[in-house]
Formats: sequence, structure tokens, C-alpha cells
Amino acid sequence: MEEYRPGLEGVIAAETSISYLDVEHEEIVIRGYDLLDLARQKTYVEVAALLLEGELPSPEEKERLERRLVEESKVPEKVWEILRLLPPESHGMDRLRTAVSALGNFTPHASEATPEADRKKGWHVLSQVAAIVANLQRIASNLKPRDLQPAMGFVENLLYIITGRPPEEEEIRAFDQLLIAYIEHEMPNSTFTARVIASTLSDLHGALTGAVASLKGPLHGGANEAVMEMFIEAGSPEGLERLIKEKLQRKERIMGFGHRVYMKKMDPRAQLMKETLARLVEKATGNRKAELTNWYETAVRGEEVMRQEKGLFPNLDYYAAPVYYALGIPIELYTPLFFASRTAGLVAHVIEQHAHNRLFRPRVRYTGPRGLKP
Amino acid sequence: MEEYRPGLEGVIAAETSISYLDVEHEEIVIRGYDLLDLARQKTYVEVAALLLEGELPSPEEKERLERRLVEESKVPEKVWEILRLLPPESHGMDRLRTAVSALGNFTPHASEATPEADRKKGWHVLSQVAAIVANLQRIASNLKPRDLQPAMGFVENLLYIITGRPPEEEEIRAFDQLLIAYIEHEMPNSTFTARVIASTLSDLHGALTGAVASLKGPLHGGANEAVMEMFIEAGSPEGLERLIKEKLQRKERIMGFGHRVYMKKMDPRAQLMKETLARLVEKATGNRKAELTNWYETAVRGEEVMRQEKGLFPNLDYYAAPVYYALGIPIELYTPLFFASRTAGLVAHVIEQHAHNRLFRPRVRYTGPRGLKP
Repeated sequence: MEEYRPGLEGVIAAETSISYLDVEHEEIVIRGYDLLDLARQKTYVEVAALLLEGELPSPEEKERLERRLVEESKVPEKVWEILRLLPPESHGMDRLRTAVSALGNFTPHASEATPEADRKKGWHVLSQVAAIVANLQRIASNLKPRDLQPAMGFVENLLYIITGRPPEEEEIRAFDQLLIAYIEHEMPNSTFTARVIASTLSDLHGALTGAVASLKGPLHGGANEAVMEMFIEAGSPEGLERLIKEKLQRKERIMGFGHRVYMKKMDPRAQLMKETLARLVEKATGNRKAELTNWYETAVRGEEVMRQEKGLFPNLDYYAAPVYYALGIPIELYTPLFFASRTAGLVAHVIEQHAHNRLFRPRVRYTGPRGLKP
Repeated sequence: MEEYRPGLEGVIAAETSISYLDVEHEEIVIRGYDLLDLARQKTYVEVAALLLEGELPSPEEKERLERRLVEESKVPEKVWEILRLLPPESHGMDRLRTAVSALGNFTPHASEATPEADRKKGWHVLSQVAAIVANLQRIASNLKPRDLQPAMGFVENLLYIITGRPPEEEEIRAFDQLLIAYIEHEMPNSTFTARVIASTLSDLHGALTGAVASLKGPLHGGANEAVMEMFIEAGSPEGLERLIKEKLQRKERIMGFGHRVYMKKMDPRAQLMKETLARLVEKATGNRKAELTNWYETAVRGEEVMRQEKGLFPNLDYYAAPVYYALGIPIELYTPLFFASRTAGLVAHVIEQHAHNRLFRPRVRYTGPRGLKP
């Protein structure tokens, strides 16, 4: 057969009209648009519509989708019961994975694997996953889950449930941009997982469940939590410089840097989140301003040290972590929220896979013995 | 970049010493042994040990593993509760997927992704998955799950729980061979799914949960159920000949024939299951003999018709379906039992992936528009 490429590096695994990483021009293309244009000018719900429906919604359509997402976000009581049966100390992604899988059991036409069914179920599961993620900590603390309220926007609702206080306008905007930054990114491991599963004509909920499992991994979605833990351990710009240099000497991996695809170029989303963090610093006052300024300067120092020492640039997780933190979002929700946002992209990929399906079934290079007799 | 191969057909996605489909010599190689030799001379527990530990066990080790599997098969009461919360009419694979995901939450060191942790958790989850699958219908019927009993062998226990009656010696042997036939098969979609997930250094239970989702698909594990439904609809050799010809005229897919890898060669496992079915016919008496003879002749007739009409050979699912049926196993358990058996192969692949890891992260060919402005 042919050359073996570990990790399928550089191998084209699918044709897609959903998104593309144009590394050369440092552009993340989402159905023809630059992701950064979308993040600066549109809302999460609009970009989700672009992914699921194929085009940006009209203002009326946008309002309708906001209402639809809030209305459809109701989670079956039995799924909350299932979450309450899981040990509160177990990993947030293990609880989320179980909840997403359970949701499939309560979804009409759960096994239907057509683009039409996927789109309908997709909007539904997008809103339910968000409601589950926003309530993950409440469930673990034995509190009653909060429903989304029609008086608030979709993204505002989520931030309100998570933090327990009505968010400021600039916090809603920052959170919305954070969610857009994570919404879709070509063919990372979790998206690939979802498409591989969907290619057996298995269903949307199964594909999403597999994607949660993938995103849990420390080499994938788990990185944003590790970044914030590193910032907290460091405590200050000087602390982070020292910590990174020590880690490099011990040849340890520094989380939040490098990316299989971007290699030695900047992840445009990191730049976006750096701006978002700067804006939160600018709007803050008093003690909060001092605290956020410290995190901003710490992050910038780490970026500089890594460029000098290793020639590496930060990826999205690096600057997303302090934005999450500044919004008062608990660290253990960073990866579940990454998934909640990415659900829009994943649904789009499952729709596309089912519309033009071909079963994924690669081969192997066998390196073991032959001819043994039992 | 390079040529795009839809479905990664012919692309080498991993190096492995676990198994290999030697299509040219019609041999399924399992760690150096021919799968058919193993199925004819060894038991399921021995082949599982070959996969998880790397070599066939000694007779003493085999006895120890039988006891271990029975001892470790205890499922946490809360996982049974979760299964009871799922609608009894929902798909068996959706309930199994949720249960496997839930199990991770109750497993010590659930997130540890080292070969050592995988092997220990692997034996545990192998026995728990089998206990869950064997009890899936009891739970759906609101019956108390049955535990495995130390007085019986592992495979005997499963058949006893499923059918509710002590199995005959030849039934245990036939069921054991059926499980060996399904135990491992190189890189089908579900195994690929598990390795893709594991490559983020996500954990064993996540990888297995994704594999359940994959195996549910009608193009993968779901085929054995569809085959038996076709046999039942046909009712007799003449009925199947008529049914297949009608379906072919309507250009419908006939389940149980053809395989991405075997193409126009016979799946050796189909031959094995044909022999197993013939032996069950031979040992049967009275009405049962007449009934089994009819299924055997029906299956053989279908094989002949498809060879003449399409030049296609049966795959494993085609002859496994009537063996399942002859053993009194309900149709909706065929795919869950496929997964229960395959768990051994999947654990071996996750161990190998974690031992020599490289993140799966392919690229795409973008076919959408560019340069749009929001």
C-alpha cells in the first residue's frame, strides 16, 4: 500500500464547504466568511445559523432563532436525574458525555440519520447541551437546575445561570465572542470523531457523544483548563516567566502553545481573545481592574517568553482561559463550554457527512508476528 | 496537498501488532494467530487475554481470568438506576452507549490514559459491559438484573442470563465461537473511532462510548439485526430467493453481503459461523431440528443467489444472525453483543494507541465560497 502518516497529518479526510484553515493567509474561513469578521460583527446565534442553515439569518430570523433556542432548551427531568446519579466529583466531561448520550434516548426520531432530521435535532440538542453545561455545577452542588428565561438572550441566559448574577453588557459581548471563537475550526480530532461515527449512518447524538469523549483529552479541549491552572500557579508576569523557563528546562510541555495546523503562525482566534481580554480590562474599575490587568500582563509575558525561547505562538486556549476567568466562569466548565459552543459546528459536519456519505474504513500496517499456532 | 480518498479507503491510519486482514490469503491475523484456529481451539476468555495481555494464557491463568471476569462484573447500582431511567423502547445501543459512558464516572482513575491503567480498567469494563448487555432486556422489562455466578464460566453466565435457562454444552460452545468471531477485526469504523478518541489522551471509557455510537450505525454493527429480519420476512429458502431477487430489481441493498476490505472474497468468519450453525442443526432433535434446518437452508440459498446474481459473498453478519437466533438470543441484542465481544479488541487498540500516541488531526479539501463579508 502507501506511505504511513502518523496521526493522518496532512491527509485529506473529507471534502467540506463548512470551514477551512487558510494557514498561509492566517484566516479561518467559515462558509466563506472570515471567523474574525463574524466574531467582531455578529452574534453566536447568527454564526450558529450560518453553520446549521448555510447562511447568515435576517434580523427577523435571528430573533426567531433566539426564541427557539430558549424554548427548546428544556431538558427532560430524567436526564437531570441521571446527572444527579453521577458522582459530583467525577470529571465534568464524563458527566456531560453521559448526559448527551442520555438525551438521545429522549429525542424523537433519535436514530434518523438524514440531513433534515439532523438539522431539526441539531437546533434542539444545541440548546439542550448549553442548558446542561450551564447547570453542571448546580447539579453537582445538589441545586435545582435553572431553566433559560425568554426575557433574556440565549448567550446572556447561559452566563446568568453559570455565574448566578445578571451579566453586564460587555460581559455578554465578551462571552459571545468567546463562544464564536470556539464554534467551528475545520477538522480537529472531535469533529473528525463525529464524522467518522456519522459515516456508519449512526445518529447525531451518537456522533456528538463521541465528540465529547474526544474533546475531554488533554491534547485537545482539556488544554484551556490547564492554561488557567498554570496562570494561577504563576500568579504574576514574573511568576509565569520563571515557571515557563523551569518547565522548559525540565522539557515539560507548556499548554496553550503550538498547534498541529498553525505550527509557527499565530492562531487568529488567540489574537481575538487577546483583544477581548484587553477590552474587559479597559472597562473594569477598582480592584477588578487591578486583578484583570495582572492576568492580562501575565498572559502577554508568557507569550513573549515562549516566542523568544521556542519560537512558538499562543493558540486559542491560551487567551481564552483568562477571558473565561475574567467572566467568573469556574475552571471546570471551560472544556464543557468549548463543547457547548462547538456543538453548532459538529451538527453542521454531521449534516454534511450524512448528505454525502462514505463509510470511514482505513487500513493498518501490521507490525506483529505471523504464522503462530495455538 | 494530496489526493483525496473518500472514507480513507486504502489509507494506512495506524501501525498495529494486534490484528491484520490478510485478504490475499483470506486470513484474519490476531497477534500472529489465525482467528479461525483460535475459534476452533480456544475460548473467548483465552482470545481476550491474547488481545489484552499480548499472549495466550496458561491453563492456570485462564482459570484465574474466568474467575476475575465473573468477580469484576458487578455493575454499580446507580448505573442500573440510570438504565432504568431510559425509555425501555429506546434503541438498545443508545441505552448501552449511555451505560458505558456512565460506568466511566464510577471507575477509579477514570481519566488515566496509560497502557497500565487501560489494561486494568479494560478487564473490568469488559466484564461489566457483558453484564449490562446480558441484562439489557431484563432492565427494559423492569426485572431485577441478574449477577454473574461463580459456579459458571463467563460465557455460560451471559447466555444463561439472556435466555433465562441453563444452556447446553454445544450452545455454550457455539456462543463462545460467535463471540470469538466478533472479538477483533483490524480497523473497522468503531475501532478507528476508539483510536481517534484515545489519541487526544482521552480515556478508555470515552473511547469505548464512541465505539458504541459507531457500531450502532446500519452500515456497521446494525447489519446483523437487519439480516435476521430479512430471513424472518422470507421464512424459507424459496422465500429468500424471491425476496433477494425482488430487492435487487428495486436496486435495494441486501444486508450481510460485501465488505469494504473483503470485496469479492469470502469473509473467513462467515465460513466459521456457517460451520457453527451446521453443528447446531446436527445436534438438534425434533421440531427444533426442523426449524434450524430451515434457517440453515434459507441462509445457504441466499448465499447461492447472491453469488450468482451479484458475485458477492456473505460477511460475518450473514451467518452470525441465524446462530444468534438458534441460541434463542433476542434480535435486539445482536449488535450490543457484537460490542460486548469487541470490547476486548477495542481495549487492546486503546492500550496500543496510548503506548505510541500521535494525535489524529487530518485536513480537508474546502469546496465552499471565499471572501464573503458579513
